[in-house]
Amino acid sequence: MTAARTAGRDGAPGPALSEALLRPRSVAIVGASGTPGKTTARPLEYLLASGWGGRVHPVNPARPTVLGQRSYARVRDLPEVPDHVFVVTTAEPALDALEECAQIGVPVVTLMADGFTESDPAGRDRVRRLRQAVESSTTRVLGPSSLGVVNLADGFLLTANAALVEPDLPAGDVFVASQSGSAIGALLSRGKSMGIGFRALVSTGGELDLSLGELCLASLEDPGVASYALFLENLSGVDDLREFAHAAAERGKPVVAYKLGRSAAAADLAVSHTGALAGDDTVASALLQSLGIARVSHFEALLEAQHLARATALAERPLRQPRVAVVSTTGGGGAMMVDCLATYGAVPTPPSAETLLRLAEHGIDAGPGALVDLTLAGARYEVMKAALDVLTTAPEFDAVVAVPGSSARFHPDLAVKPIADSAGTARPLAAFVMPEAPEALALLRRSGVAAFATPESCADALVAVFGRRRPTGSPAVHPDPGGRSRVLDEDESYRLLASVGVAHAPYAVVSTAMPSPEMPVAVPAAVKILSPDAPHKSDIGGVVLGVRDRDGLAAAISSIVAQVSTSAPHVGLDRVLVQEMVEGVGEVLVGFRHDELAGPVVVLAAGGVLAELHHDRSVRTAPVDLATAQDMIDDVVSLKAVQGYRGLPRGDVAALAEVIVAVSRVGVVTDGAVVEAEANPVIVLPEGRGAVAVDALVRVVEREEA
Amino acid sequence: MTAARTAGRDGAPGPALSEALLRPRSVAIVGASGTPGKTTARPLEYLLASGWGGRVHPVNPARPTVLGQRSYARVRDLPEVPDHVFVVTTAEPALDALEECAQIGVPVVTLMADGFTESDPAGRDRVRRLRQAVESSTTRVLGPSSLGVVNLADGFLLTANAALVEPDLPAGDVFVASQSGSAIGALLSRGKSMGIGFRALVSTGGELDLSLGELCLASLEDPGVASYALFLENLSGVDDLREFAHAAAERGKPVVAYKLGRSAAAADLAVSHTGALAGDDTVASALLQSLGIARVSHFEALLEAQHLARATALAERPLRQPRVAVVSTTGGGGAMMVDCLATYGAVPTPPSAETLLRLAEHGIDAGPGALVDLTLAGARYEVMKAALDVLTTAPEFDAVVAVPGSSARFHPDLAVKPIADSAGTARPLAAFVMPEAPEALALLRRSGVAAFATPESCADALVAVFGRRRPTGSPAVHPDPGGRSRVLDEDESYRLLASVGVAHAPYAVVSTAMPSPEMPVAVPAAVKILSPDAPHKSDIGGVVLGVRDRDGLAAAISSIVAQVSTSAPHVGLDRVLVQEMVEGVGEVLVGFRHDELAGPVVVLAAGGVLAELHHDRSVRTAPVDLATAQDMIDDVVSLKAVQGYRGLPRGDVAALAEVIVAVSRVGVVTDGAVVEAEANPVIVLPEGRGAVAVDALVRVVEREEA
Repeated sequence: MTAARTAGRDGAPGPALSEALLRPRSVAIVGASGTPGKTTARPLEYLLASGWGGRVHPVNPARPTVLGQRSYARVRDLPEVPDHVFVVTTAEPALDALEECAQIGVPVVTLMADGFTESDPAGRDRVRRLRQAVESSTTRVLGPSSLGVVNLADGFLLTANAALVEPDLPAGDVFVASQSGSAIGALLSRGKSMGIGFRALVSTGGELDLSLGELCLASLEDPGVASYALFLENLSGVDDLREFAHAAAERGKPVVAYKLGRSAAAADLAVSHTGALAGDDTVASALLQSLGIARVSHFEALLEAQHLARATALAERPLRQPRVAVVSTTGGGGAMMVDCLATYGAVPTPPSAETLLRLAEHGIDAGPGALVDLTLAGARYEVMKAALDVLTTAPEFDAVVAVPGSSARFHPDLAVKPIADSAGTARPLAAFVMPEAPEALALLRRSGVAAFATPESCADALVAVFGRRRPTGSPAVHPDPGGRSRVLDEDESYRLLASVGVAHAPYAVVSTAMPSPEMPVAVPAAVKILSPDAPHKSDIGGVVLGVRDRDGLAAAISSIVAQVSTSAPHVGLDRVLVQEMVEGVGEVLVGFRHDELAGPVVVLAAGGVLAELHHDRSVRTAPVDLATAQDMIDDVVSLKAVQGYRGLPRGDVAALAEVIVAVSRVGVVTDGAVVEAEANPVIVLPEGRGAVAVDALVRVVEREEA
Repeated sequence: MTAARTAGRDGAPGPALSEALLRPRSVAIVGASGTPGKTTARPLEYLLASGWGGRVHPVNPARPTVLGQRSYARVRDLPEVPDHVFVVTTAEPALDALEECAQIGVPVVTLMADGFTESDPAGRDRVRRLRQAVESSTTRVLGPSSLGVVNLADGFLLTANAALVEPDLPAGDVFVASQSGSAIGALLSRGKSMGIGFRALVSTGGELDLSLGELCLASLEDPGVASYALFLENLSGVDDLREFAHAAAERGKPVVAYKLGRSAAAADLAVSHTGALAGDDTVASALLQSLGIARVSHFEALLEAQHLARATALAERPLRQPRVAVVSTTGGGGAMMVDCLATYGAVPTPPSAETLLRLAEHGIDAGPGALVDLTLAGARYEVMKAALDVLTTAPEFDAVVAVPGSSARFHPDLAVKPIADSAGTARPLAAFVMPEAPEALALLRRSGVAAFATPESCADALVAVFGRRRPTGSPAVHPDPGGRSRVLDEDESYRLLASVGVAHAPYAVVSTAMPSPEMPVAVPAAVKILSPDAPHKSDIGGVVLGVRDRDGLAAAISSIVAQVSTSAPHVGLDRVLVQEMVEGVGEVLVGFRHDELAGPVVVLAAGGVLAELHHDRSVRTAPVDLATAQDMIDDVVSLKAVQGYRGLPRGDVAALAEVIVAVSRVGVVTDGAVVEAEANPVIVLPEGRGAVAVDALVRVVEREEA
């Protein structure tokens, strides 16, 4: 009896896990049915039909043989310790089988059963048993609710997925990990139709042990894997995803993801606080971007983007508005492509004067505008090839999109072959094929050209892959320590933020016991109750604005004491904070917090009700550098108003960027002591005069005194 | 010699035009080449190969026969007057041929030649010759730059489009009119692959005579046409499009359009004036919506939406947020569909308690949330059929989307056939087929179910067809009379707007010659130079705000006279307008103008720089009713701030709606005298207190005194 060893839960998953998962020498199928057509019969049927070279053992106590294979009553009766056991029974017998597998040291067990929900007692008990089996052994579990795994290169089809009846399965070099089991069938059939092949497809299920990130990481050394397609329903196991993404970037293997949840209806409700702001889908996008994962919004683009992702290297900074040349043999198709590119945020770019001259040398009159239309020149090999030779070497473009017209369907030699022959040139090259022309798409993809059946998915993919960047963030992750924390008062918050580089408007702390204090700052001033227990000062009558002199200050203090003592009796009344009111040209919220899934994030949101209504904000994983802070400022539409729009006074955007960087680093700089910080509002002063907080709230972990 | 008579340019196009265009008894092809494979050989090749039953005559002076057909030197040598002549030569000989055709009374001439541009003298001369030929005869011209027409039912392929080499052309009941010739090939091949067939496809070309609207209108009586797919590059010939849309709505034949130009980069520059505001693509959308034409944003959806459009009747009002049931045999696919629907503006809707009970009677546990997931119940005919029987008769849904999973590919009898068998039920029914399954899509479409290959196009189409309404506007169109017009001063503008029902803040006109006039209105007041020559009063020092008393008024008048006399010496200085400053809870622009293409439009735009930056506005063809005015208010995100958002004071939205209606009707009410009107800003007062203009600008036509 032998057992492939996997890495333990404390080590990095690697080749051993990958071997047991996808290239085992022996498997057992617990609950294998002998009735053809039944879901539980499928894995054995597939393995027997596929010509897989390993050993397969059905485990079914009810019959001596299953589909002609000798059957065993229980896992422990097996003649060997299988590398991988697929359990297709319901939850209770599945747990029994898992426990046996753990006892005899099976490296990987895949569970198909449902019923492991934390929301009912039986489900919680199952989760407990599963975790116990995993923790007490070297066994790793895929699932529950996993439809299994498929390794097309070896014909290893350990899955109950009905879609695997597919003849001529499309083997290739894309690795698919999907949190939806049923999406795998769609990717398989659509990929086959597209001419895109797969190395392996893994249904990750509930990820109670092995996470999607671990599963991908385990496959990373496989030279047969060129890129990854992830179908995500959520961001569970984010630390593993982070580790995988960093490693994938190092290996130069691109990752593209389609993630559900763009529409969270909750977004409307969650606009006013950093926590809620960052709670929507924008955090997922920010996380994926920080990890160098291209997020596409069209399902088709998840596969169609694979080649384009391979043709584009990860840069230090995302290229947010790639400049794209469009060349077509169909005016209508070319115009559609230009329109879609601009709609998705790319910049359809006209050729430079020099490029126009070079095109003219080949008899190509590109005309004005962003489309190089070859319709008049004709759909001929030489014309398209010459145009691509010029465009792919012109410095003014980041990418080139070719749009072959009707000839692509029956005469791919005319306008499609020159595109295929231009693969691997200096610029990333994509094609949108205007007619229905599956052979043209397949020819292009075989040649390594990113080929798209719709202009929408082409634009989507292009913008997504150029928006990738070399992964950041991992070294800086200070997890929310949980446990007790306390909120600093406004004075303490300012001082802490000042220590990391965030300026604030001048203020002084004044005792309410003084009969008639001097005005300690320039007027007009704001007078605010000072207490960590009053984060919403205005709501309890704790703020008086526009105070102009000593009498006013005394009156303001009296008013605050009177009102707060009634509206919020628990709030201490001994001090107020008197702050100079500054007039800026804009105001924003800058916040830092720990997102439950994504970890530390920094949020920039425009101030005011209108900005709220427009969800006008930007989120990144923290910390960020100055360039990313400037990207965030560019994301926030309202901030165009302080960047030279229509002759309005310019704000000190450079100072704002520094504030964003400082706030984003507050967790790192304080070695995790600060778990939440919000400067809100930050007043953006006129150019050259800075950006200052005029309210702040910081939450720190409570640590034992040394 | 006989000639089918077409309707003249003054009569409505109709069956006669349609006959000559698409069902002629005889055609000639001028410039037909005898060299197989040449573009100019194609029409004759197609007609000879297709088995078309009519007579075809090549016209080619260089050879006695062309592809075995007797050839004629010139049009006038033909043995009969053909019903339709296709001219495939370059522009100059094409015009010669057209003139001959006009002389002998050919009903329809289609011109393929380019070169009819107004931007160069030769092009202008060609346009002139073309128009002259048309005006001096009964001949109608399709083109120039038309690739021709195709009538698949009769095998009448009078086209040079290379895509028509397609074997087994998909005949059917969709009529395609395309301003892009090359888009026709893509629609043909994609339609065939989808199982969607065509009655006819027309390349409209440059529309110098026959417009896209006329061409569609001519086909409207054809019982073989069930619906229309329009590929639009622009909105030329909008009056014909309007007439067609009204007639199509009467006949119950739906129209779906894909229009280029969503991305007009110019939109950014054009935000501050009504004219510019309405100049972008939103006007095209407003026009199409007012005409009951569904505008899709995905190219695929242009065809995929056809069945869905047929299954939904035109209502009096657009249904902006259709409530949609989603039922699936694939959890992942169902979730994708729900996500896409919400992203595109539909409302994925959970079944009611009663519907859940009815589902439970069939053993279906729908679970919570908006997705009825049949995965556990299994992909079986009875399950899907029962679920659809319940959902399509439940009152809480406007439409039902079914999402079959992997079984759709190889076992359409399981989850696809029950969808097909549910066609024609009480609710519009659509399907998104998750795997690659062309046969399933074709089966569904043959059965009349709207079937989609991507969730994005499904959501796009669904929202687009429900957003249609019975066409409006036609009776109310007062074309901009052109010619001389004059701008009214602010006082005249208020009075004119007041006459149609738009209130303004109280004001008085004061002579600047008075030494120390009384303050004529409640204070604080605004003092403004009053002259039709000073539309941008603030820019020339012509406005003083916050005037509180008689001295202040005198000082303000002095200041205005001094500044304006310097900054704008041509502006009359004799009068100022003194107006009460009112404090509202919001401010907007309400404008009326004649759009060059769409005709009269009304614009509602939020006030302030932020609203500008967010392009926060709504456009409709004018006039509008109160319900549409409320829709416009709902479109403008910033106006949520005065509709009860976060406890902010409510504004008098009902009064604002009345202002919008009144401004939208200013053209009609004044019998076309007003060609432009802008109340900007309109101050929205607190609830119950109205909405008043505090500046206004009206432009009226100059008419001869009676």
